Amino acid sequence: MQTTFQIPTRGPGLYEFTDQVAAWVQGSGVLTLFVRHTSCSLLIQENADPEVQNDLRNFFHRLVPPTTDPSMAYLTHTYEGPDDMPAHIKAAMMPVSLSIPVENGRMRLGTWQGIYLFEHRNAPHTRQVAAYLAV
Amino acid sequence: MQTTFQIPTRGPGLYEFTDQVAAWVQGSGVLTLFVRHTSCSLLIQENADPEVQNDLRNFFHRLVPPTTDPSMAYLTHTYEGPDDMPAHIKAAMMPVSLSIPVENGRMRLGTWQGIYLFEHRNAPHTRQVAAYLAV
Amino acid sequence: MQTTFQIPTRGPGLYEFTDQVAAWVQGSGVLTLFVRHTSCSLLIQENADPEVQNDLRNFFHRLVPPTTDPSMAYLTHTYEGPDDMPAHIKAAMMPVSLSIPVENGRMRLGTWQGIYLFEHRNAPHTRQVAAYLAV
Repeated sequence: MQTTFQIPTRGPGLYEFTDQVAAWVQGSGVLTLFVRHTSCSLLIQENADPEVQNDLRNFFHRLVPPTTDPSMAYLTHTYEGPDDMPAHIKAAMMPVSLSIPVENGRMRLGTWQGIYLFEHRNAPHTRQVAAYLAV
Repeated sequence: MQTTFQIPTRGPGLYEFTDQVAAWVQGSGVLTLFVRHTSCSLLIQENADPEVQNDLRNFFHRLVPPTTDPSMAYLTHTYEGPDDMPAHIKAAMMPVSLSIPVENGRMRLGTWQGIYLFEHRNAPHTRQVAAYLAV
Repeated sequence: MQTTFQIPTRGPGLYEFTDQVAAWVQGSGVLTLFVRHTSCSLLIQENADPEVQNDLRNFFHRLVPPTTDPSMAYLTHTYEGPDDMPAHIKAAMMPVSLSIPVENGRMRLGTWQGIYLFEHRNAPHTRQVAAYLAV
């Protein structure tokens, strides 16, 4: 059973889509999520306090600043904008695919776990997440 | 075939549970491991020299220090303790799920690969790793 | 359906093997890739501009420099060479396994996505990537 989730984004940060996925899964097996881009990530993170999501965005912005930052002057892939190469780097550091066991129609997420699209680019995008459920 | 592995932890570091998993798998297929928490990680790492595990813990402690460190003063999610938000950040940087091919009852791990729970919190925890074996 | 891809490497950097994998997959299901080493990684990255691959290599070299760098003097696992412990750290930060949905014989990669072996060691190696296709 396959589908594609569409996640609209409006700049860097975490966009939760747990509910979309939960409504689609059924039976028992393994869910595979795969993001079809190289400048955003999939993330399982705490969905209780929105400050966690802001702190995550800010940490990675400092660890991998825009190429306009002097510390990043050694990067050469800059013609798509100062946020582009840092987006590829963040996409290398965080998951492109997730595998989640499903039991009796429910993902085996922990109490505080939500599923997020982590957008690394500044411009609005519609991101595609390919999903496969093997039951 | 599903199960849940319970991994007791006593502070930051790597806890190997390869043997538990090896004893459970059978047949040929794919094993999915999924950690049901947002402040610890799953890791495949070298299991020959324990210094590797200490060095990994120390590297990530320096890359993402406690929020009491002045360099982390911009973080806002601090009410669960100085080790909490850094734990979420480390959980974003390292795997929450692993997929391991299994052949004739054995995981296709390399010679030096072990499976670890990487605990990022200071307090003792019992961590749950959901496992699904599709044969 | 199982196989092992062999990827020869000659020092740090990204080695694409998308074509090898594309030629092997068939049907519809999920492809699991698993690298059987603890000093290299699997990566999905942009395959349009080779500068992206150089920038990725250079970023991680600066984030996790050789143990001869004074900033890394706290590391203790150094007897396998100055590039060894940093290789384990990078292997912890980037994927050891990837799960990719397959539909009608084609991986559901995005337009610019390629599959890479990211070598972290200086010496030449032949790396093994275990593959399992569940259809």
